[in-house]
Amino acid sequence: MKVAVFRKAHFNAAHRLHVEGWSDEQNREEFGKCNNPHYHGHNYAMDIKVVGEVDPITGYVIDMKYLKDIIKEKVEDKLDHKNLNIEVPEFKTVNPSCENICILIHTILQEALGKKYEVTVRLYETPRNYCEYPAS
Amino acid sequence: MKVAVFRKAHFNAAHRLHVEGWSDEQNREEFGKCNNPHYHGHNYAMDIKVVGEVDPITGYVIDMKYLKDIIKEKVEDKLDHKNLNIEVPEFKTVNPSCENICILIHTILQEALGKKYEVTVRLYETPRNYCEYPAS
Amino acid sequence: MKVAVFRKAHFNAAHRLHVEGWSDEQNREEFGKCNNPHYHGHNYAMDIKVVGEVDPITGYVIDMKYLKDIIKEKVEDKLDHKNLNIEVPEFKTVNPSCENICILIHTILQEALGKKYEVTVRLYETPRNYCEYPAS
Amino acid sequence: MKVAVFRKAHFNAAHRLHVEGWSDEQNREEFGKCNNPHYHGHNYAMDIKVVGEVDPITGYVIDMKYLKDIIKEKVEDKLDHKNLNIEVPEFKTVNPSCENICILIHTILQEALGKKYEVTVRLYETPRNYCEYPAS
Amino acid sequence: MKVAVFRKAHFNAAHRLHVEGWSDEQNREEFGKCNNPHYHGHNYAMDIKVVGEVDPITGYVIDMKYLKDIIKEKVEDKLDHKNLNIEVPEFKTVNPSCENICILIHTILQEALGKKYEVTVRLYETPRNYCEYPAS
Amino acid sequence: MKVAVFRKAHFNAAHRLHVEGWSDEQNREEFGKCNNPHYHGHNYAMDIKVVGEVDPITGYVIDMKYLKDIIKEKVEDKLDHKNLNIEVPEFKTVNPSCENICILIHTILQEALGKKYEVTVRLYETPRNYCEYPAS
Repeated sequence: MKVAVFRKAHFNAAHRLHVEGWSDEQNREEFGKCNNPHYHGHNYAMDIKVVGEVDPITGYVIDMKYLKDIIKEKVEDKLDHKNLNIEVPEFKTVNPSCENICILIHTILQEALGKKYEVTVRLYETPRNYCEYPAS
Repeated sequence: MKVAVFRKAHFNAAHRLHVEGWSDEQNREEFGKCNNPHYHGHNYAMDIKVVGEVDPITGYVIDMKYLKDIIKEKVEDKLDHKNLNIEVPEFKTVNPSCENICILIHTILQEALGKKYEVTVRLYETPRNYCEYPAS
Repeated sequence: MKVAVFRKAHFNAAHRLHVEGWSDEQNREEFGKCNNPHYHGHNYAMDIKVVGEVDPITGYVIDMKYLKDIIKEKVEDKLDHKNLNIEVPEFKTVNPSCENICILIHTILQEALGKKYEVTVRLYETPRNYCEYPAS
Repeated sequence: MKVAVFRKAHFNAAHRLHVEGWSDEQNREEFGKCNNPHYHGHNYAMDIKVVGEVDPITGYVIDMKYLKDIIKEKVEDKLDHKNLNIEVPEFKTVNPSCENICILIHTILQEALGKKYEVTVRLYETPRNYCEYPAS
Repeated sequence: MKVAVFRKAHFNAAHRLHVEGWSDEQNREEFGKCNNPHYHGHNYAMDIKVVGEVDPITGYVIDMKYLKDIIKEKVEDKLDHKNLNIEVPEFKTVNPSCENICILIHTILQEALGKKYEVTVRLYETPRNYCEYPAS
Repeated sequence: MKVAVFRKAHFNAAHRLHVEGWSDEQNREEFGKCNNPHYHGHNYAMDIKVVGEVDPITGYVIDMKYLKDIIKEKVEDKLDHKNLNIEVPEFKTVNPSCENICILIHTILQEALGKKYEVTVRLYETPRNYCEYPAS
């Protein structure tokens, strides 16, 4: 009997959208004010969804305290109060778009939780713009 | 690598629920106070979901500025501050229920964005009543 | 020992902004699309604030069930699913702006609750535009 | 043409997490402060999703007033202002975890609405922890 | 130059409304289902407001990390996952109404922060019912 | 007859907390991870409150379209997608704490709207930390 459990979490970070190898003009045209070389920032919010079997004794899919701690250790400590372009190695050459940050968080958490669980990450860049991976 | 991106938008409109060809009594019985001939109204809110491939260079599924502008031009300009029954041709003979408005918005945006993208529309009639098309 | 208690409530209504005695052109200029003669509508949300002494035995300023019922009977039943311009006598000659609706709700509830309580009404026309009377 | 409609509802209840047949120590270790023998409580919030065909005449999947009444009668009246462990027979021997409460609500509403509709229940134990059944 | 800073926090607790010295019947009549002898519960949410002078060098009214820790230590650790009637001494003889819990939290935090700051507590019993002390 | 009207608005920016003239160590000790030299960022949200007399004919305190445009032109265009420390002259020597940004926005809007109106600014740095100036 599969149930989905969700945990909300968040981090605050600076970033800019920028493609290495493109001219400044091309970058400005594509990304507009999001390309500002001095960076801007967001309160990123996450809904982490974990699908798994309900334990017939405890009634848990996963201990939410354990899930909260994993998110804190693997995702928040890595991204919170950081400059994503400069301080997060994965974004040295990859553009830290909402989509790419979402995929990175998914990779990290799916590996941390193992194949017993199916992880989906919803990432809010603002309360009006957000993304989800994998897409259902 | 498919990712879903979402954009929130909104419009305010008047409507009444009413089936052409039914008697006034039958309409009142079915739709209650929502059948008020003088209309009532809502702050409709939309979550527009667009699923597509992430561009390997930009990290975008779609330019959110472009998506925002399409929603503004095709949906908000058509529905905002309007009387849905009187001023929106599609609802001359179709009841502007939450479901039917949702289907209309989906038709408009799916056509505007093309087959490269899969669109889903969630439409909030109130913060407590909402619908989604296509249903997952 | 004075405490403020708050109750949220809501109603859905149609309205248009329009000054009797002004020309159509003057009305359009002042109120723009809010002047649409076919009406538009909103999900109005209210935060009703009531300040009073805490009863030393019950620990209540006012029975929240009683407050909820008063709001239902005096405000929701009068305004919900209505056309404010046509069906609410107070707006026959007064423009149903957010400010004027807020003042009306305050008058109704302050009278219903009596001088023992100080009422303040916050009225959301949309989640982004709202008003409060009396102003603090 | 299948559309999903959603209705939000809520109830407030006390509970504790506890497995009958485990020692007090084992229960404390597994469930921490959620095992408090004097109980704690939550404002549970539900998003009830109902998928079905849109009626071609009314434009309804289901009458939302009917859905609201069913949720009130079958779920809220059973769970609101109750102690889940003591007063809800289903949790005499089953741990009232978010997952198990969600499955119970699903069973009740799917049976009440019948096979014509596909029900999904999202249950918020807190605004940060929630679950969904069946998992998509 | 006085500025108000606010910090949100929360705790989950069980309680019942009950006046010692009243008959069971009188209690049931006054408090309805909130008088349930088996308790019910809430996700209480707080907005803690602290008014003070802005430090001309740091630009802080108060270190928000310090405020967060004080709220955690003095309020959350005392009330979270507790039965307010049984486990919080202040409510042995005082009814744990929203108003009385709000006043208690104010007393605790005003004393912890000292006269340099003016504390106001807004306490949400549910997202629809809340109170504030002192009342403005 | 004075009424308060409110308009929500928002901007996204990068910043760091840092006092010129303090050693790096002193800055790190006071501001912790908020002192990160590579910056972090936020989705700042504002509630702009304007108190004034209700116009007896229009029922407006102020035209909300005009207020929205003033906020856009004077505040959003100045702060949105900017690095507050580097690109906003007022923060060259003043620490861009939530309090100081709030005071700056108040100064700008009070001057733009004139003495006829009393402006109050609430600024959310995150959904959990916010401030208000002037303090009531």
